[in-house]
Amino acid sequence: MTVETYYATSTGPVNIATLKYWGKRDKDLNLPTNNSISVTLDQADLKTLTTASCSATFKEDALWINKQSYSLDTPRSKQVLADLRSLRSEIETKDDSLPKIAHFKLHIVSENNFPTAAGLASSAAGFAALISAIAKLYKLPTDASELSKIARKGSGSACRSLFGGYVAWEMGSLKNGEDSKAVQIADKNHWPDIKAAILVVSDLKKDVPSTSGMQLTVKTSDLFQHRIKEVVPKRYEEMKNAILAKDFPTFAELTMKDSNSFHAVCLDSYPPIFYLNDTSKNIIKLINLLNEAAGEIIAAYTFDAGPNAVIYYEQKNEAYVLGMLHKFFSHLEGWSKFNAADSKFFESFPVLDKEIYSQGVSRVILTQVGEGPTETEDVLIDLATGLPK
Amino acid sequence: MTVETYYATSTGPVNIATLKYWGKRDKDLNLPTNNSISVTLDQADLKTLTTASCSATFKEDALWINKQSYSLDTPRSKQVLADLRSLRSEIETKDDSLPKIAHFKLHIVSENNFPTAAGLASSAAGFAALISAIAKLYKLPTDASELSKIARKGSGSACRSLFGGYVAWEMGSLKNGEDSKAVQIADKNHWPDIKAAILVVSDLKKDVPSTSGMQLTVKTSDLFQHRIKEVVPKRYEEMKNAILAKDFPTFAELTMKDSNSFHAVCLDSYPPIFYLNDTSKNIIKLINLLNEAAGEIIAAYTFDAGPNAVIYYEQKNEAYVLGMLHKFFSHLEGWSKFNAADSKFFESFPVLDKEIYSQGVSRVILTQVGEGPTETEDVLIDLATGLPK
Repeated sequence: MTVETYYATSTGPVNIATLKYWGKRDKDLNLPTNNSISVTLDQADLKTLTTASCSATFKEDALWINKQSYSLDTPRSKQVLADLRSLRSEIETKDDSLPKIAHFKLHIVSENNFPTAAGLASSAAGFAALISAIAKLYKLPTDASELSKIARKGSGSACRSLFGGYVAWEMGSLKNGEDSKAVQIADKNHWPDIKAAILVVSDLKKDVPSTSGMQLTVKTSDLFQHRIKEVVPKRYEEMKNAILAKDFPTFAELTMKDSNSFHAVCLDSYPPIFYLNDTSKNIIKLINLLNEAAGEIIAAYTFDAGPNAVIYYEQKNEAYVLGMLHKFFSHLEGWSKFNAADSKFFESFPVLDKEIYSQGVSRVILTQVGEGPTETEDVLIDLATGLPK
Repeated sequence: MTVETYYATSTGPVNIATLKYWGKRDKDLNLPTNNSISVTLDQADLKTLTTASCSATFKEDALWINKQSYSLDTPRSKQVLADLRSLRSEIETKDDSLPKIAHFKLHIVSENNFPTAAGLASSAAGFAALISAIAKLYKLPTDASELSKIARKGSGSACRSLFGGYVAWEMGSLKNGEDSKAVQIADKNHWPDIKAAILVVSDLKKDVPSTSGMQLTVKTSDLFQHRIKEVVPKRYEEMKNAILAKDFPTFAELTMKDSNSFHAVCLDSYPPIFYLNDTSKNIIKLINLLNEAAGEIIAAYTFDAGPNAVIYYEQKNEAYVLGMLHKFFSHLEGWSKFNAADSKFFESFPVLDKEIYSQGVSRVILTQVGEGPTETEDVLIDLATGLPK
């Protein structure tokens, strides 16, 4: 008698918020204090690929990322697996013909196509891929918004990675979090021209981990309550409308303002939290100068809980935006998609000290708006051994 | 017949705000959007010395600072001189025995005992000395709060330099600004133990001048209105009470929080304004680590519109505060008042990379709470020529 190993594979994308999630109203359930919005990035450039498998022979739940073993014995991971198993149990109960696999131990094998160390929302892509793969393995009829609630418990902003395109995380108001989920504002094809240049900024290490940083801000920042009650709700509607209208200047201005506002409440925390460093500040200046020289907003910076910059722009302005960035960062890896000969420049862009402005960035990643998790035929697991291939 | 040259000399101190002035409700009159509080620093370390003189022979109003000629033909300087002349005219009208000098041109000679380039509120000390010297020259019966209104028109925060010790600038509510003036919360002798270590941080140049920075914040920051309407009014009362109670931990915590809040609304401006750089951030970390190691707040950082740090502490903790700072900044000038052998250390203060944390500071100035403007017998002007000695 052979023992069957069940398996399924899915991808998960990175998303970068344009309206920031900062602050939890419930730490265990990862319920946020405000709505947020993000753009899902193209998985050709940034993706987690995950095979989930289960078998009667597996002894314990196990996870490998890039061949390295990680524990699933954390409250967040255990919650995610428990939720998915519970959904599988439900359908097994209803349909006797289904194999009883909900109680099988899971082996999960993941690979990122980008360096984890770059500090690029890898947990969001990771949870999105893991949940999508298990949902496929379990043949769950659950839709992406429902799955996003499970992802949210794993890592708040991961919920937005269950969708492609332009995504909102509705904070919800229920205590149990059942209405705190991701929804798609518009898919990638609605506004396919949005591109992103990621400038990976070298840093010693993260100032403060996100979760404890959020807790500190909620507890100590005098400006924070105003941000979540007054500033974000208005900005949320405006940004959704800008996306629906494909109004880049408005979308971009709101994105920059919200990045500023998020880092402002971090700085207003006590003791203050700093995620931007002098390199980040220089990048902000470059983008402001570019927009000034253009006479309109053609590029938007945004920074998460770290110094990396993500620059959003429209395809039609690529020659100007990447032209300017290439001038300062041509010495870095990551330019293969851009032909420097296509660069265009605004005459009024000031002459800057290249020595100063080209410092501190370690790599460029050129990408664009992309799709949500996708099932694939890849198999990362050796079905004979249950271990990574 | 000899022509008499009238003259008088006064000093003006630097003040460093612990509750920040940021935002004008009237730009021409320098009326602020919130109350502020400062500590006046000892003039033995930081002072402007100014001789004001007038004579029938002088052809135009003239100013020299550290031997260099500066124009008085600016709206702010002209307003200050017009106000002082008007007060002199009033008393000349009332008392016929007084010489009629209000209409004489003024020659003003100033010297700073500290490098102007250090970016240390030199305009506050300058206007306080200038106004005090002319008030003495004109024998004005005007009290310091009245003179502070004139100083305010010259340079907002200069009004606080008309007093020694602990000073509040009451924003007032009148449109003409007649109730927007400095008052003394407590004189130096009420709480003489407050000391200050200034870490002069090297910087290329000021990100944005204060006046335009304030205008930008008022106009664009979504968090700013909350700061001035909700946060500062409460903090103002608490800080005044902490000064009156000589409660250093409370005073220090409020001081740090208000510095954070001020820089947060700068960052929340659009485009964002940055006055803190990576060196400033490192200093903030050092002070936080020191307070953590002490188990109580024994030092407070504060930053104005620039990267320089001012560290307030009580005399009784000097061995710990300066001991820690000396460990990182012993290579700089400015330690003559502190005997490094007196240093004390907390065992739990972590080991830090000295290379990183000792970077970016160019000079140390050790000082303490001090007196307000003082008349002196110095004469900086050559009475024969009307030029600087």
